Amino acid sequence: MHRVVVGDYATSGFRKEDLKSVFDIATEAGSLLLKHQILSRGEIDAVIFSSCSSDQYSASILAEMLGIKPKIALRIDNLCNSGTSAVISGHGLIASGLCKSALIVGAETRNSPGRVLSWDVTRGAFALPIHWGTMYARNHMRTYGTTEEQMAMVVVKNRKNASKNPNALYRKKITADEVMQSKRITYPLKLLDCSSLCTGASAVLLLSETMASDKVENPVYVTGIGAQTNSASLAKVMSDINGTGTSKLAARQAYKMAKTTPKSIDVAELHDAFSIMEIMAYEDLGFVQRGMGGKYVEQNEVATNPRGGILGCGHPLGATGLSQVAEITAQLSGSAGRRQVKGCKYGLVYNLSAAGTSAIVVILRVD
Amino acid sequence: MHRVVVGDYATSGFRKEDLKSVFDIATEAGSLLLKHQILSRGEIDAVIFSSCSSDQYSASILAEMLGIKPKIALRIDNLCNSGTSAVISGHGLIASGLCKSALIVGAETRNSPGRVLSWDVTRGAFALPIHWGTMYARNHMRTYGTTEEQMAMVVVKNRKNASKNPNALYRKKITADEVMQSKRITYPLKLLDCSSLCTGASAVLLLSETMASDKVENPVYVTGIGAQTNSASLAKVMSDINGTGTSKLAARQAYKMAKTTPKSIDVAELHDAFSIMEIMAYEDLGFVQRGMGGKYVEQNEVATNPRGGILGCGHPLGATGLSQVAEITAQLSGSAGRRQVKGCKYGLVYNLSAAGTSAIVVILRVD
Repeated sequence: MHRVVVGDYATSGFRKEDLKSVFDIATEAGSLLLKHQILSRGEIDAVIFSSCSSDQYSASILAEMLGIKPKIALRIDNLCNSGTSAVISGHGLIASGLCKSALIVGAETRNSPGRVLSWDVTRGAFALPIHWGTMYARNHMRTYGTTEEQMAMVVVKNRKNASKNPNALYRKKITADEVMQSKRITYPLKLLDCSSLCTGASAVLLLSETMASDKVENPVYVTGIGAQTNSASLAKVMSDINGTGTSKLAARQAYKMAKTTPKSIDVAELHDAFSIMEIMAYEDLGFVQRGMGGKYVEQNEVATNPRGGILGCGHPLGATGLSQVAEITAQLSGSAGRRQVKGCKYGLVYNLSAAGTSAIVVILRVD
Repeated sequence: MHRVVVGDYATSGFRKEDLKSVFDIATEAGSLLLKHQILSRGEIDAVIFSSCSSDQYSASILAEMLGIKPKIALRIDNLCNSGTSAVISGHGLIASGLCKSALIVGAETRNSPGRVLSWDVTRGAFALPIHWGTMYARNHMRTYGTTEEQMAMVVVKNRKNASKNPNALYRKKITADEVMQSKRITYPLKLLDCSSLCTGASAVLLLSETMASDKVENPVYVTGIGAQTNSASLAKVMSDINGTGTSKLAARQAYKMAKTTPKSIDVAELHDAFSIMEIMAYEDLGFVQRGMGGKYVEQNEVATNPRGGILGCGHPLGATGLSQVAEITAQLSGSAGRRQVKGCKYGLVYNLSAAGTSAIVVILRVD
């Protein structure tokens, strides 16, 4: 197996804009990356597009708009973790030796068709994401004594981080009081506990180690991949609300492949679609024992969501996983500027889809 | 790199039906395959869905409907070659060692959103597939003297093959006269020169060689993969109408990877969306010299489109590439029944997307 390097990345500003097409948005991030000239356009073997867009042969369109004639052009989607699903596919193309490089671009518009899930009738009246966020939150509070204040602390931290990220949707710091007093939507979730769908794009360039050798100064390697799908039905996922869960299984696979443990992780991007999801992530990823996630917010040994997470950056579905990978790559290669976490060697990306119906964990490291 | 085996396959009846959902159709082929019990549901590492459907997280839905909880679930599309694009991705997952198995299901309904291409405004008034089919046909006739009768012979051959395929949309043999006298749609294309969009599904199970060793009797290996994307714009593709073309480049890559030449190919499924496309395929794949495709119909040393091709079987977009792989696997493993081509060892799949905007060639072989 060829080792795979994240050789470059670029992210467009995440924003509320809804006039441009998903291709215009995708081209922003793709063009930014190509301007760095790590590779010429002719050296790009595959263009993978990650999006919930309903456009046809969209990867071929994106390739054309970027002026690339790749060998392989394909679009991948799996809702909120489309981005890391695309990374897994790109990794396979390179690790197997079929390709030397893959440009993966994720993009979404705020009015993406991914905002509505019509298939899962088990959701019944609980059709919106906030319904499952609420169930997870109430369950965690009831079972483990997690508090609204602890959830608010997640938001405060991520918004603070986002204030240093010029690409984040929300760049204003907020206080725990502001979160607690923001509009109550359900019990216990308030407006500021929830992320926002938005418009944005992020691109990542995967390279074979050989291809990267004379082009990338501080290569960041993909060393662990874990993924687990449970069910597309909320009812089935919820029956597992305190069980092992897709996230724990995905994490276990990723640590095993990376030959490491949660203790080694220095920095992580976590799927905080709702504040409670970050608290549960601490537990599922093994940073802290089951039930202790609420308290972990107060100590937080791993630097979590340095780019601002989904709460701070917004959630352009197909782009989210790629912007997570981009941030961890920036951190590990020491290029994160004002957001730089000192001395980090191991980084983790945790990307969920629709209420935890599937989870993906990717571990990156520098040698 | 781990060698990859096509360990199993199943195809539903291709038909005009348009009442069922794309998931019902996909589940038909997936369930058929699972009934063979090559693997248990728990042994399936990845479920890849190939379709132009605009449903969200559709691979997760399909996995649930099939009763599988795979690690990886993702949907791939690239219009008419979505199926082989999915095979390329699945191959990467297994060849790299990340997965031991991948169930790839392609499905489409006749009213698929893939039937309309709205993005490519360079098509102008030539928006329909028959417009590009016509341009290719007229160019080939003008440049190389190919005749309408030669194109009709392609249709006769493929319909004859389809008459032995219980899953084909068209199972009635026809004569060259019938083709020549069918309704003229453009000059030179008649109704029977054109394939039909239809409803259908096809599934393929990829396995690592190790996984296949005690489960598959006559393992068929994926030994060559080639792919080339040109442009999503018809105008740009057409400027290359007599040039090297995506197909020739894809074929070259595939032969190189498989360490073989066109001479070794015994059986091939070719992308005959229009009869002229099969004549051009003979040339692009190196079965015969440029310009000699029309005459090759009369000799046809390679057994072409034994399942009936797209002309005979119909074209359920996301399923087509997989049904091609399924047929070549059946042929190479000696399981093609009434359609069996004797003594074949090397097989080829050739799958195009939208007017040749991208081409994929996959070479399979038995040891």
